[in-house]
Amino acid sequence: MSLLVHKYGGTSVGSPERIKAVAEKVKASVDAGNQVVVVVSAMSGETNRLIALAGEMSKRPEPRELDVLVSTGEQVSMALLCMALSELGQESRSYTGAQAGIRTDMSHNKARITDIDTEKVLADLNKGRVVVIAGFQGINADGDVTTLGRGGSDTSAVAMAAALEADECQIYTDVDGVYTTDPRVVPNARKLAKITFEEMLEMASLGSKVLQIRSVEFAGKYGVALRVLSSFADGDGTLITTDEENPLEQALISGIAFNRDEAQITVLGVPDTPGIAYQIVGPVADANIEVDMIVQNISGDQFTDFTFTVNRTDYERTFEIVSGKAKELGAVDVSGRTDIAKVSVVGVGMRSHAGIASVMFEALAKDAINILMISTSEIKISVVVDEKYLELAVRTLHEAFELSSPVEVV
Amino acid sequence: MSLLVHKYGGTSVGSPERIKAVAEKVKASVDAGNQVVVVVSAMSGETNRLIALAGEMSKRPEPRELDVLVSTGEQVSMALLCMALSELGQESRSYTGAQAGIRTDMSHNKARITDIDTEKVLADLNKGRVVVIAGFQGINADGDVTTLGRGGSDTSAVAMAAALEADECQIYTDVDGVYTTDPRVVPNARKLAKITFEEMLEMASLGSKVLQIRSVEFAGKYGVALRVLSSFADGDGTLITTDEENPLEQALISGIAFNRDEAQITVLGVPDTPGIAYQIVGPVADANIEVDMIVQNISGDQFTDFTFTVNRTDYERTFEIVSGKAKELGAVDVSGRTDIAKVSVVGVGMRSHAGIASVMFEALAKDAINILMISTSEIKISVVVDEKYLELAVRTLHEAFELSSPVEVV
Repeated sequence: MSLLVHKYGGTSVGSPERIKAVAEKVKASVDAGNQVVVVVSAMSGETNRLIALAGEMSKRPEPRELDVLVSTGEQVSMALLCMALSELGQESRSYTGAQAGIRTDMSHNKARITDIDTEKVLADLNKGRVVVIAGFQGINADGDVTTLGRGGSDTSAVAMAAALEADECQIYTDVDGVYTTDPRVVPNARKLAKITFEEMLEMASLGSKVLQIRSVEFAGKYGVALRVLSSFADGDGTLITTDEENPLEQALISGIAFNRDEAQITVLGVPDTPGIAYQIVGPVADANIEVDMIVQNISGDQFTDFTFTVNRTDYERTFEIVSGKAKELGAVDVSGRTDIAKVSVVGVGMRSHAGIASVMFEALAKDAINILMISTSEIKISVVVDEKYLELAVRTLHEAFELSSPVEVV
Repeated sequence: MSLLVHKYGGTSVGSPERIKAVAEKVKASVDAGNQVVVVVSAMSGETNRLIALAGEMSKRPEPRELDVLVSTGEQVSMALLCMALSELGQESRSYTGAQAGIRTDMSHNKARITDIDTEKVLADLNKGRVVVIAGFQGINADGDVTTLGRGGSDTSAVAMAAALEADECQIYTDVDGVYTTDPRVVPNARKLAKITFEEMLEMASLGSKVLQIRSVEFAGKYGVALRVLSSFADGDGTLITTDEENPLEQALISGIAFNRDEAQITVLGVPDTPGIAYQIVGPVADANIEVDMIVQNISGDQFTDFTFTVNRTDYERTFEIVSGKAKELGAVDVSGRTDIAKVSVVGVGMRSHAGIASVMFEALAKDAINILMISTSEIKISVVVDEKYLELAVRTLHEAFELSSPVEVV
């Protein structure tokens, strides 16, 4: 008997019919001899509907009350799923994040899970019940509802799987696995049977959008076996696993990730003194804005240019914060643009192989795609390009690394 | 400084604009020097939307999960109201029933409040905050969400007022007070400045629909001053108070109540043995169906006819239960009909005055309205008539008791 955590996103529970289909999947898993905990998102469209209501109340709704509001979305889904399970003769219990013992820190809208009290859930499982939990939410030390931020249901599922020491955390989604890149951009993109946590982390954070980044971090950290699979079709999906488990199948490059939601801000001609990066990025981080790429260049004697990217929705707020700070620091100017995109090649194989960067830059140059920023890590190389070249860049790189057929380890 | 509990129903919070208007009313009350606790219902239509979703999952949705589902409606309202209050510069906190310490018994869909832990609410009030509480819901000893049944937000408000020893519990609604009867049926119906708890109880239970019956019971029992007033217009509404407070203004008859949602079931020719009433009504009550009027007549030697009324929505279930029981008891037949209505004259003045019944019966006879059942209490006389005569009966009685102008104590 395996203990599985299933997670179903908004599209998977987007209508009464789909919720019934989810109930069938869950029931089949129980009938196959598994204990199942289900984490559900809000029905697709519901969170946006609620946020729109909040927007009619206030331009900047109270963060605490926004959590109270949007957390109802998952509560609706979980109750409906339990009703559907009951119709199939499967006993179940639904729990909000608070009821399921998911405790978080005090931050609203972007809370982090601190610990999980699994007593109630385990008791139900041992009675043969399916436990259905509202994703995306928890409770803080004040007893207030918190949310983990959009997409946080994946994190709820992985955290629950870790706390329960589940055998597998299965993320059911509208895609049937992780691909070498987005098949809408490259039609012959290939589904990966396995991918490492580190690669998945880069793929997710760079915008492959299959899984929420924090859930992959969590899964890697706590050794939770993660599987992405389709809630609409059968199939084994993609298993996200540790590097060591399957060294032979390891390809040089696993995929091409990209992200359209970036914006770039440059502080020009700031005095190059120690701590300058902290003084610019610090206030941005304090405002709970996530900074992605950071590049610093010498622009002249004792002066430096400092460029970084943030999520496009945070652009205006960031620009405001940085402009104020730049004046204070005596910078020459602050500039920025939102019509950029990031493209990355990702692969753990990269660690031991030179030449990846040159293949990448050569391919882009051949198609006259100008590179605006470059940053690298052990298992990825990212470039920022003009947004209009994004699709071209992805296709070019997918071909250059021969990703439509499995790549041999050189 | 007075401590007030405001309660706003579904229509009063039916749109973002209306929620803003409620926020203005609450803010005005705070600015006038009051401490305010607000109890809100779900936005109008929301509960029905959720119940329809449940209906798509199952014909008989799990009671526990139904509570989980519908309780989200009030949670949405409370968050939106707090956001609107914040826009007006008024600090506030929203709490679900569970968070507000509203504990109930274990029954789902129709739970009763057992006690309220006001610590959290009082702490907020003392910090100058408005506290906004989800009506209609609580938490049971298992930590599960329970609901008080439809309309239960009034009960939440009164219970909260009692627990807080509030100076007044103000029920804001879409009518501006309690009338001698429904003004849609009798256009010159008169608004009452005051009414006793007992009268209000009869008016509410008989279908005047201004307040939920249990809330009035509660208010009377705990001596909570209750006021019904309009959330859309200004005015003092109707104060529901104790008999003794204002004996002079006491009219003979306060109003004509009526109820269309009744159905009648008769068990014919059942052996007239001790305990027979219990054997018929017992199983109905066990099924959580509320029985309203009960009339028993001797039909012949050792046999009796037994008639009672239930809510029309419970008719089929009740008929099924009673049919089974009747066979067991050797009854001749079971009959029933749903095209009936109940009309009642209500007034504490009735206690000390004879002749009310004869005025009533004479008026009905004059208009050739046949009386199907009669039952009486200390402060009301109810008759069941063919539904098609309902409006005529109400108008006739309103006129017979001269309710359009204040009636002198005879």
